[in-house]
Amino acid sequence: MSHSTLRAAIVGSTGYGGVELIRLLHAHPNVTVTSVISSSSAGAPIAEGFPHLTEIRTDTLDGVDPELIRSKADVVFLATPHGVSMKLAPEFLAAGLKIIDLSGDFRLKDGEAYRKWYKHEPAEAAQVEQAVYGLCEVFGKEAAGRPFISNPGCYATAAILGLFPAVEAGWIDSDSLIIDAKSGVSGAGRGLSLSAHFSEINENFKAYKLNKHQHTPEIEQALARAAGRPVTVTFTPHLVPMTRGIMCTMYAAQPGKRRSDAEFVELYRKFYEGRSFVRVRHAGQWPATKEVWGSNYCDIGFSNDERTGRVTIISVIDNLVKGAAGQAIQNLNLSMGWEETLGLQFTPAYP
Amino acid sequence: MSHSTLRAAIVGSTGYGGVELIRLLHAHPNVTVTSVISSSSAGAPIAEGFPHLTEIRTDTLDGVDPELIRSKADVVFLATPHGVSMKLAPEFLAAGLKIIDLSGDFRLKDGEAYRKWYKHEPAEAAQVEQAVYGLCEVFGKEAAGRPFISNPGCYATAAILGLFPAVEAGWIDSDSLIIDAKSGVSGAGRGLSLSAHFSEINENFKAYKLNKHQHTPEIEQALARAAGRPVTVTFTPHLVPMTRGIMCTMYAAQPGKRRSDAEFVELYRKFYEGRSFVRVRHAGQWPATKEVWGSNYCDIGFSNDERTGRVTIISVIDNLVKGAAGQAIQNLNLSMGWEETLGLQFTPAYP
Amino acid sequence: MSHSTLRAAIVGSTGYGGVELIRLLHAHPNVTVTSVISSSSAGAPIAEGFPHLTEIRTDTLDGVDPELIRSKADVVFLATPHGVSMKLAPEFLAAGLKIIDLSGDFRLKDGEAYRKWYKHEPAEAAQVEQAVYGLCEVFGKEAAGRPFISNPGCYATAAILGLFPAVEAGWIDSDSLIIDAKSGVSGAGRGLSLSAHFSEINENFKAYKLNKHQHTPEIEQALARAAGRPVTVTFTPHLVPMTRGIMCTMYAAQPGKRRSDAEFVELYRKFYEGRSFVRVRHAGQWPATKEVWGSNYCDIGFSNDERTGRVTIISVIDNLVKGAAGQAIQNLNLSMGWEETLGLQFTPAYP
Amino acid sequence: MSHSTLRAAIVGSTGYGGVELIRLLHAHPNVTVTSVISSSSAGAPIAEGFPHLTEIRTDTLDGVDPELIRSKADVVFLATPHGVSMKLAPEFLAAGLKIIDLSGDFRLKDGEAYRKWYKHEPAEAAQVEQAVYGLCEVFGKEAAGRPFISNPGCYATAAILGLFPAVEAGWIDSDSLIIDAKSGVSGAGRGLSLSAHFSEINENFKAYKLNKHQHTPEIEQALARAAGRPVTVTFTPHLVPMTRGIMCTMYAAQPGKRRSDAEFVELYRKFYEGRSFVRVRHAGQWPATKEVWGSNYCDIGFSNDERTGRVTIISVIDNLVKGAAGQAIQNLNLSMGWEETLGLQFTPAYP
Repeated sequence: MSHSTLRAAIVGSTGYGGVELIRLLHAHPNVTVTSVISSSSAGAPIAEGFPHLTEIRTDTLDGVDPELIRSKADVVFLATPHGVSMKLAPEFLAAGLKIIDLSGDFRLKDGEAYRKWYKHEPAEAAQVEQAVYGLCEVFGKEAAGRPFISNPGCYATAAILGLFPAVEAGWIDSDSLIIDAKSGVSGAGRGLSLSAHFSEINENFKAYKLNKHQHTPEIEQALARAAGRPVTVTFTPHLVPMTRGIMCTMYAAQPGKRRSDAEFVELYRKFYEGRSFVRVRHAGQWPATKEVWGSNYCDIGFSNDERTGRVTIISVIDNLVKGAAGQAIQNLNLSMGWEETLGLQFTPAYP
Repeated sequence: MSHSTLRAAIVGSTGYGGVELIRLLHAHPNVTVTSVISSSSAGAPIAEGFPHLTEIRTDTLDGVDPELIRSKADVVFLATPHGVSMKLAPEFLAAGLKIIDLSGDFRLKDGEAYRKWYKHEPAEAAQVEQAVYGLCEVFGKEAAGRPFISNPGCYATAAILGLFPAVEAGWIDSDSLIIDAKSGVSGAGRGLSLSAHFSEINENFKAYKLNKHQHTPEIEQALARAAGRPVTVTFTPHLVPMTRGIMCTMYAAQPGKRRSDAEFVELYRKFYEGRSFVRVRHAGQWPATKEVWGSNYCDIGFSNDERTGRVTIISVIDNLVKGAAGQAIQNLNLSMGWEETLGLQFTPAYP
Repeated sequence: MSHSTLRAAIVGSTGYGGVELIRLLHAHPNVTVTSVISSSSAGAPIAEGFPHLTEIRTDTLDGVDPELIRSKADVVFLATPHGVSMKLAPEFLAAGLKIIDLSGDFRLKDGEAYRKWYKHEPAEAAQVEQAVYGLCEVFGKEAAGRPFISNPGCYATAAILGLFPAVEAGWIDSDSLIIDAKSGVSGAGRGLSLSAHFSEINENFKAYKLNKHQHTPEIEQALARAAGRPVTVTFTPHLVPMTRGIMCTMYAAQPGKRRSDAEFVELYRKFYEGRSFVRVRHAGQWPATKEVWGSNYCDIGFSNDERTGRVTIISVIDNLVKGAAGQAIQNLNLSMGWEETLGLQFTPAYP
Repeated sequence: MSHSTLRAAIVGSTGYGGVELIRLLHAHPNVTVTSVISSSSAGAPIAEGFPHLTEIRTDTLDGVDPELIRSKADVVFLATPHGVSMKLAPEFLAAGLKIIDLSGDFRLKDGEAYRKWYKHEPAEAAQVEQAVYGLCEVFGKEAAGRPFISNPGCYATAAILGLFPAVEAGWIDSDSLIIDAKSGVSGAGRGLSLSAHFSEINENFKAYKLNKHQHTPEIEQALARAAGRPVTVTFTPHLVPMTRGIMCTMYAAQPGKRRSDAEFVELYRKFYEGRSFVRVRHAGQWPATKEVWGSNYCDIGFSNDERTGRVTIISVIDNLVKGAAGQAIQNLNLSMGWEETLGLQFTPAYP
């Protein structure tokens, strides 16, 4: 570890977001993970519970001890459930640590919305205000130099990246948006539940939390900035019998002139110019989730229907990378003033 | 075999629809499969290519020989690709055989629509006119006593059963319909293709034929009867890394009064009263595909969103049963004047 | 329900073995399930937790109340964990109920072996003695008229059916037996555990309990009857990322004359003559698990290696049918003096 | 590209081995892929057929043109089927190019064995003699500075790494070896076949090529070097419904003194000392395939059975990495005198 290396701690290292941070940061040239932290397994060698890390990490898990972490790290990734991050973040911030929070606690600027959708008391408004909403390709400039970043939700990342340019351009009606989302099961986390039990989800496809999912207001908050007025969307999440991957299939009316697929491609390519991790597919090609598996890409495609005047927009991400750990590192890069792609240029694993 | 047994032949016995007919008819008290037919494998014992039939069927495959079939069977199931059924059906009909056609050749009454969506010349109009569109729970009465039934498409079955009652009641706007459909890979058939190659589709989720799928006009034709005027829908099929199952997640605006989930449940239960194979779930419960796996059920659920005024309707089927072989047998039952459930009361295989 | 119907109760109806009993018995002409029983969910409609049973079973779960069960049922299936069956069985037996026990509690005649492999105190020796070990195709005659049957383990069923004839004939060396077994995840049951968590087992293959699995002594006990002397085997279970299915790939030395595949086929066909549920494949064809999916079959194939003199024997079953609920019903049939195939002639679901 | 970069060409870039080479070499600091080659798709942009490479590779596929390749590359990876490599290799070698061949054409030193197991005429003996068998952790020293390396088979890699140290030490009886192998479906390649058709293999487990698989003599050839005499093994490959991963579960008798798991661990750790990609697990822990997914590791574990005296050895690899593209790059590294881990230190992707 050179003296210029940034030292990172990961709280929640035994969840899927946490172990994915370990995997990705292992390849980062400027960052060294100096502390892996777990409230439930402190003291155990991390490779015991996660044998894929054998000989890669030989250290033991630390407890959630702010004093200790302060002494070992410069930046803390909070890969913790909502409700927990809001307790830990203030203390770490006060100690001068940089925070990248992967939970939903600081994403919604409106405390009432948080209360309604998360069924939980919101974090203090002052804290929430301090957190930058780190959707890199849309609001990335706001992250530069900032010490406290709220990493977007997985579904929200795919949905907003797929809709923002067209909403902002006024090409699609922001009152017409329907987001039909599909996710691999790792999005449900490592906590045991019947809905993530193998025999229940294998050879099965199911919808859940219809019109109730907590990423809905997050998507609406971001798109309102594009539309310049409040936006309400229909959002339906589904579980796919696979581990990683999110697809959003999104439907919108075109209120005015109808554009071709090629025009959409051009609009999006221009919007995302210079941003390596959004790949706008050429007209007639739609991305599949495997095409971004294990990588930080978000791929987007279009299909206009001349019969209905609706456009269908498809976006895909790896929920654990661009939808969690990868974007968190991208946010760290932006916050540090580094290239946003640093340590993140993984080719998707195919097949 | 008692003299009262109906003798059935299956053309296309080596496709997934054909072997599912064999499985289901094996349990039918009034039908005996007397000929399994394949143009490509005639002469081979069927259990050689399909070892799950070992000791269940010890016969060899027949060729596509109308003379032979006439001598062995009373009813012919055509589990053949589109373009083939239209060649075989007239000859069999002329010989006095009952025909249940599982292809798309006789579903669309409008030859132009067939030509446009199937990229193929349509069957003769007179033949098409003769075929009853056998969506049992909606148009089932029309099948009674009829010798020629066109079995609906898999996606179309799930979509129409899920939308018809609300369109007919005028509760949802027939110009607003969006059908986001997901299917297991068996729907792509047994023919080899890269898109059904295991390593390409496992741990993957993809969309295909956006705004181009040939079940679109079939859905529109049926819903036009509900609406009393032409209907145009947006339809997006996706492939799920599983073998069986279709879910349609459908979105509609409510043009007038907004109804509750409970009201939708009541409307649908009334509409499907006395029909055993549609199970309308109680408010707040949405069906998953595994819950109908291996059975002839179509299960339906609802979610109204007070914020947008849209209703989301979810329907699921097993694409090879209710979406193909099961409904074909149900059509035979109706055509023969038998109980529609005869030989079809399989409990879904769970897990 | 005619007066001749046998009334059945299922204790443990909310486990996978229990719900499979419900599915299979639903098709049995002589049996009606009159009570579904669960200690944890008594009072709840069974279709609420198991929506695939919607409109198929409208009753609520009963508690574990022997008085109640006695009044409702003639036979009780105990689909309960080991340690529980040994508590329930004596009481039910005393009340004159017939018992089919699916747990491991009464399989091992040697209490010491039970203690060692199950890490639990054995049932009372007198009870154990009373229980017939119901491996139908091998010891089926012993079940006739008997009130208390211990249903074999899933792995044990596949292994014993695949090895017994050759061991008994002295064709293979009973000291050389190696059983490499692979199972779908439903074998691990419906209880939550990290090893059955979807994201842990999907796209994964793992071994477990090497040389420690409790079906080992059960296999040895049965094969000792074939060999006429104690048998010790090497047994390795693995988890396959699928829901249903067991394959045992078994290796044996041929101590004397080396036989051909065809000779093995002949030996086994003769041994299993008249038994519908064992299908001995012709030489050169080996069964795959999907070929018995959802059915009560056990399929067996052979491969002799002239280079090593070893024979490889492959057997497959559906772990929830022939490995649990199906064989339990087959045992009931034998015990009642009915055809052993009654209500069990399901064609495997393919694909 | 610095002048010190080695230029690589990949023949067979549209197979799974080829695209995996592209993925891995993209991260290699000393190598640039300058030509991706396909006989069937020459002229097409590689990202058109492999959209996961969008914006990562913008070049088109070259034809199999030795002149062209000589002008563009220093090393050629032959990810071609057997029978093809033997035609291409001599020409490229003659032109002074370094060759890493991933096919089976140059693995077997005995032409008769090649003829028997591959059912194909062997390559010229002089060519075969020239090729170094590149099982890095066992015969790695032989690759240093050599221009022509034959990359081991996937099954053979896992089997030999798991058995070699114990055979060499004389701890296990080389006449007793049984290798029960399981592979993900990507091992069957990208060519279409019914046995890799999704609906056939999903929710299925099957054995194939019993006692006939062409990796058998490759394993025997390597183990003979350990034993100092000919070795004959029983080898059974199976297909697992997953994309990547191989496990070998291997059984051996211990002819003399019986060793403990801990003694095996010590023996293997000593044997593989200094080799980063073999991870010998501590006693009582057995590796699962997911624990090496996407990485170049081979993990090994042991279980001794005091009852039978047999030891069970488990080894796992990712068949496309350590079993193909990764080991090929490792061989390049060794051949070039670089660190063998260069560009290959991927953390396994979990979950």
